[in-house]
Amino acid sequence: MASVAGPEIERLIQLLARLPGLGPRSARRAALHLIKKRDALMTPLAGALQLAIDRVQVCKVCSNIDTQSPCTICTDARRDPTTIVVVADVADLWALERANAAPGKYHVLGGTLSPLDGVGPGDLTIDALVARAHEPEVTEIILALNATVDGQTTAHYITDLLQEANVKVTRLAHGVPVGGELDYLDEGTLSAAMRQRTLF
Amino acid sequence: MASVAGPEIERLIQLLARLPGLGPRSARRAALHLIKKRDALMTPLAGALQLAIDRVQVCKVCSNIDTQSPCTICTDARRDPTTIVVVADVADLWALERANAAPGKYHVLGGTLSPLDGVGPGDLTIDALVARAHEPEVTEIILALNATVDGQTTAHYITDLLQEANVKVTRLAHGVPVGGELDYLDEGTLSAAMRQRTLF
Repeated sequence: MASVAGPEIERLIQLLARLPGLGPRSARRAALHLIKKRDALMTPLAGALQLAIDRVQVCKVCSNIDTQSPCTICTDARRDPTTIVVVADVADLWALERANAAPGKYHVLGGTLSPLDGVGPGDLTIDALVARAHEPEVTEIILALNATVDGQTTAHYITDLLQEANVKVTRLAHGVPVGGELDYLDEGTLSAAMRQRTLF
Repeated sequence: MASVAGPEIERLIQLLARLPGLGPRSARRAALHLIKKRDALMTPLAGALQLAIDRVQVCKVCSNIDTQSPCTICTDARRDPTTIVVVADVADLWALERANAAPGKYHVLGGTLSPLDGVGPGDLTIDALVARAHEPEVTEIILALNATVDGQTTAHYITDLLQEANVKVTRLAHGVPVGGELDYLDEGTLSAAMRQRTLF
């Protein structure tokens, strides 16, 4: 390939192929699409990447990413400062924001504990979370972690650490997804939904 | 979202979502991945895009894209100058190059005739192809176009135009794909493969 399209295009394809969701074939298509739409897409994308490189930073309070630190959420006076929603990743924070589901501020762990992948407590922002939980205004920590083994291990680990902080530790409810059909749900979800049933 | 991650990240996501193969969700994942791998991926990608913007151009002979014009293939003295392989798109040229299947040089049409999409002969590089076909050294035009209605319409249109040029006009063989199972092939392919059978 390098001899056909030149090393510059080959390099662009290789870098695009490292994006999640793009393989070698779709990276070639994306590169061609960019080259064809040089003014409408490639130039704006290069600019947007450079702007993100220059401006995006990690919030020193909650580890969210934003163009300011502390981030927009941490500095938003309208958000309930007594509640901290703990998420594994910024993508989870975005998902909760799209759902408009989080009552307070956030804390991004940067992953979940995973001994197999070599991720220990020191690799996450758990110390910062414990410090925030000891702030007098904080009364509730909501663990919005994935309902996976790693996510629940992390939730238990954090709950143990927060025993001495004067906060209520809660987690997301298990249950039937909205729009979900019972016939397709696993037994664990169904029995959790039954145990945690609510008044109609 | 704009209030959460800032307009810069939102703009990056919107631009990434316009790449083929990436939807809104995967564009968000790609943006986060880029931000997390700022030095390893985002900065090199921004540089590669800028380099492509600065250097990539369309070959004035064959309409291939390259960092030089005439392109590397057009200027390659080892390639048979008597044969021109006509493809609809640069992606097809790349596919033939990966297969090492083309004996000569190329001509990229820039698409196929498609009345429904408003693509007429003037939108493609057909005039340039006819001019090249009249060059004395050219003896064969190989139409390597998709075996679709638009591709074959384009092939017929070009074949008519080349009646007066002193060239042999050929097209790719129809037949059973290598590794293909007869049971899964359509009748058109099977009967073409039978008609064009070769000595074993």
